[in-house]
Amino acid sequence: MVVNTADDEEFFGLHVSPDIDTVVYSLAGLADDLKGWGVAGDTFHALGMLERLGCETWFKLGDRDLAVHIYRTMRLRSGATLTQVTREIAARLNAGWDILPMTDDRVRTVVETPVGTMSFQEYFVKHQYKVGVRSVRFEGVERAEPTPQVVEALKTAEAVIICPSNPVVSIGPILSLKNVRKLLRESEATILGVSPIVGGKALRGPAAEMMKALGVEPTAAGVASMYSDFMDIFVLDEADESLKGEVEALGVKAYTTKTVMSSFGDRVALAGFCLKVLGIRV
Amino acid sequence: MVVNTADDEEFFGLHVSPDIDTVVYSLAGLADDLKGWGVAGDTFHALGMLERLGCETWFKLGDRDLAVHIYRTMRLRSGATLTQVTREIAARLNAGWDILPMTDDRVRTVVETPVGTMSFQEYFVKHQYKVGVRSVRFEGVERAEPTPQVVEALKTAEAVIICPSNPVVSIGPILSLKNVRKLLRESEATILGVSPIVGGKALRGPAAEMMKALGVEPTAAGVASMYSDFMDIFVLDEADESLKGEVEALGVKAYTTKTVMSSFGDRVALAGFCLKVLGIRV
Repeated sequence: MVVNTADDEEFFGLHVSPDIDTVVYSLAGLADDLKGWGVAGDTFHALGMLERLGCETWFKLGDRDLAVHIYRTMRLRSGATLTQVTREIAARLNAGWDILPMTDDRVRTVVETPVGTMSFQEYFVKHQYKVGVRSVRFEGVERAEPTPQVVEALKTAEAVIICPSNPVVSIGPILSLKNVRKLLRESEATILGVSPIVGGKALRGPAAEMMKALGVEPTAAGVASMYSDFMDIFVLDEADESLKGEVEALGVKAYTTKTVMSSFGDRVALAGFCLKVLGIRV
Repeated sequence: MVVNTADDEEFFGLHVSPDIDTVVYSLAGLADDLKGWGVAGDTFHALGMLERLGCETWFKLGDRDLAVHIYRTMRLRSGATLTQVTREIAARLNAGWDILPMTDDRVRTVVETPVGTMSFQEYFVKHQYKVGVRSVRFEGVERAEPTPQVVEALKTAEAVIICPSNPVVSIGPILSLKNVRKLLRESEATILGVSPIVGGKALRGPAAEMMKALGVEPTAAGVASMYSDFMDIFVLDEADESLKGEVEALGVKAYTTKTVMSSFGDRVALAGFCLKVLGIRV
């Protein structure tokens, strides 16, 4: 599982990897599904004290969550790579999967807005993506390499699934890394994407707004166009049945199913559907 | 208030200053008086997660306490001195006093025991001072300077009170710093010490054991002998009335009162007694 690291950020001198942590916590059964971030049942006592000490605390780091960042920062400072630390954390928390940061190099999403240039977390969390987006760039991406583990995973995969995540800031940074798009284009694996846009709206977060800023139509078909150079199959929500023709015109096979996941059962069903379409038996 | 920093230690990459924090929390009304360390009512959720991540967690850092170490570490890494950070923390938590680390340089107490060489916290907390002490040294003390603020405080003080703290590892490092003993000897301030040993026993911690290791008799008179080159007045517990002569033979005036503090009222009474003996009205 290859995960975006371009929205990593330092808070209080600690290296926070929000996307990796969400994946780890989710697979480890620790995620707070209601809030959509952090550890379920976490407390915020350290953050309260940091506030008393005069720190900005708009990024809500719970006590158990903070421990993960403390551990990651300690290991990185002692010379470990983000890949190593992530594997340690995933193993210790029983995530049960090999979770791979897209790169061990520093890439940072920078968002240009009418109220100024800011990090992704400032845009997403501090401003609750209520400010407009002029443009998005991935600072450092031109020098960043996908890790050897990511390259190996892409080269040996039987199939690749692009999850229904923000195509600009979550999938975009991975695709922007040196060689990744080329590897996907040349891959013999079947590549399947799932649309994060349903009925012209993102289910969560600013994907539609950001696609518009890039001049891409904020629809499932718009997402398909961002991946069509390497994607074989695209799964749209049943609400977007009418867009199948537009997707297939891009040379991508289109399927529809229920992609909105509001329960654990929904997730299992969507994963099962993707595997069935890919012809993979589990 | 000048505080020992030789038992500072890094845990999980964070700079922990146990003596400073105990003083800050006590004066800010946040201390856990029952346990004798940490913040009252603190939780240990981050520590529990660090344990799951495979870390040693014998040093019990609460969530609110951790926030202070996170803040300190962040500020030190950005170039602040320990003196600056301590003042910031004390001010933010309303400790109401100028709390001065003895030095901004690195000094570390190292304890030689029959089971090996260890840091003070390993000896004190991990081993609960149940291993013997062969010797104690303060690594780095020969290069460390007392801060300008400490020197200024000692030069301008009307009176100096040496608190009833461990004379070897809490007061000892301060006295070992360049010039400090000389400044005290030459000071025109009246210097008063309070015995941490009552009836031949330390009220808390390994003071008696450590004094023996240094070849000093573990009594109030033994403590007085460690300070007699600069001390004017020594306050012993009423249980040690019989040692007054021994102390006065060192050229130090001896007083007795109730020095065992088991309540807030006891503390106020002892402080009041010291001020009275020093002729200071408040």
